[in-house]
Amino acid sequence: MTLSQQEIAQFDEEGWLFLPHCFAEEEVAILRSEAEAILKLERPQVWRERSGAPRTAFAAHTYNEAFGLLGSHPRLIAPVEQLFGEHLYMHQFKINAKAKFDGDVWQWHQDYGTWARDDGMPEPKAMNISVFLDEVFTFNGPLMLVPKSHKHGVLAAGHDKETTSYPLWTLDHQTVERLVAEGGLVVPTGKAGGVLMFHGNLVHGSAGNITPYPRKIVYLTLNACSNHIRRPTRPEWIAHRDFTPITPCADDALIGYARSHPLAA
Amino acid sequence: MTLSQQEIAQFDEEGWLFLPHCFAEEEVAILRSEAEAILKLERPQVWRERSGAPRTAFAAHTYNEAFGLLGSHPRLIAPVEQLFGEHLYMHQFKINAKAKFDGDVWQWHQDYGTWARDDGMPEPKAMNISVFLDEVFTFNGPLMLVPKSHKHGVLAAGHDKETTSYPLWTLDHQTVERLVAEGGLVVPTGKAGGVLMFHGNLVHGSAGNITPYPRKIVYLTLNACSNHIRRPTRPEWIAHRDFTPITPCADDALIGYARSHPLAA
Repeated sequence: MTLSQQEIAQFDEEGWLFLPHCFAEEEVAILRSEAEAILKLERPQVWRERSGAPRTAFAAHTYNEAFGLLGSHPRLIAPVEQLFGEHLYMHQFKINAKAKFDGDVWQWHQDYGTWARDDGMPEPKAMNISVFLDEVFTFNGPLMLVPKSHKHGVLAAGHDKETTSYPLWTLDHQTVERLVAEGGLVVPTGKAGGVLMFHGNLVHGSAGNITPYPRKIVYLTLNACSNHIRRPTRPEWIAHRDFTPITPCADDALIGYARSHPLAA
Repeated sequence: MTLSQQEIAQFDEEGWLFLPHCFAEEEVAILRSEAEAILKLERPQVWRERSGAPRTAFAAHTYNEAFGLLGSHPRLIAPVEQLFGEHLYMHQFKINAKAKFDGDVWQWHQDYGTWARDDGMPEPKAMNISVFLDEVFTFNGPLMLVPKSHKHGVLAAGHDKETTSYPLWTLDHQTVERLVAEGGLVVPTGKAGGVLMFHGNLVHGSAGNITPYPRKIVYLTLNACSNHIRRPTRPEWIAHRDFTPITPCADDALIGYARSHPLAA
């Protein structure tokens, strides 16, 4: 799978790219089922909202076979290698739950701001990838992106430890207002199996989810190997230290896994 | 302005009706400007979020001329008189701010549940009307409606005084899940000047607003005169006691007011 010139131009100009139907329902179904089990685990890698609802599970690719295949899947690795022109390693791997009824807010932020400040990543040469495990509607807390905002570099941010259970370097209202006036807002939506890629400096956030529709996504950060982090301060399962280039699995490895692990009806 | 047979059938079946472009931009602009001034007032009728952002201003039709004209406007009064077959009075009149960045949640509820429990309203023969003062997008905390849910009568509810600064009789998750599985969710969006009418028993809610786009609406409740409230417990400016039938103003009264009160550029 390679990106077209038009897709590359859109990524450069807008800072994001949406690939609907990247994974088949059979592939997504097994990931969704395993994600639900993982989000129930009591382990330090699984974080909860103040309400007790699951928020984020880290590093599932290191201990779950299906997510291990997703984390090395050529449909994700190849386009990013194409854009960056080099090999990649996994900087971060999260399952974000955005639970039905109780899914909490992610305030406006740039991810590279955190990677630079907390992990010592030299450049924004790392790609955010959101793989939809549930259908993303406009109303169940979708990611909202500010197109073109990636062109502004790392913006000043404050460390918000109050709003939610996840500490985040967030942007002030004046900055967000200025960037949205310039670039607008986009809200990519679509069926489970869709893949959203966006630049590490693209400003994004998501509102709470009060609907009965959960909105689980897998959120991968693929970093260029030359851009490996230099001053990690967070646990290894949040900001990985294994900088070995990812060897992609076979394109049919995940569907093969799904077929050999049939779900109960 | 009269509703078509098709519109009446949709209201009966789905419990809601959206009339885009009901008010012209010139009419909306003066209302928006006066709403912004009203929401800054320090008076008991103006409620704020915990963050200090304005949430709701009650009864502006009683002390503001432009909102007085809106509250007796034939484009709102005539369709509801047509549906109910009798004269109307104003049960409640609110400007709901849903401020940019800080607009808070309204949990899932039926309005008639509150009118029955708190005000002693005999029947759900009162219409909710939302007049959009700003453009309502999918992402700035729009009203979300559960179609067909008005057919279930008054559902069991708990009195939520915790979630936000506005006490509300809210539905439990199981009930909402069941109703949404049956009727789905709709999110009417559109330019300022659009009007959404919905049944007093229609289940609705709205998520928070973290975007730079405020979402002010005027929220009127027109009650059939025969259905006046019997056991009010809330202040007069929340649940009105003047049951005199509304005499509609002229169709051009609001635009006349706007033209005689030009806004600063």
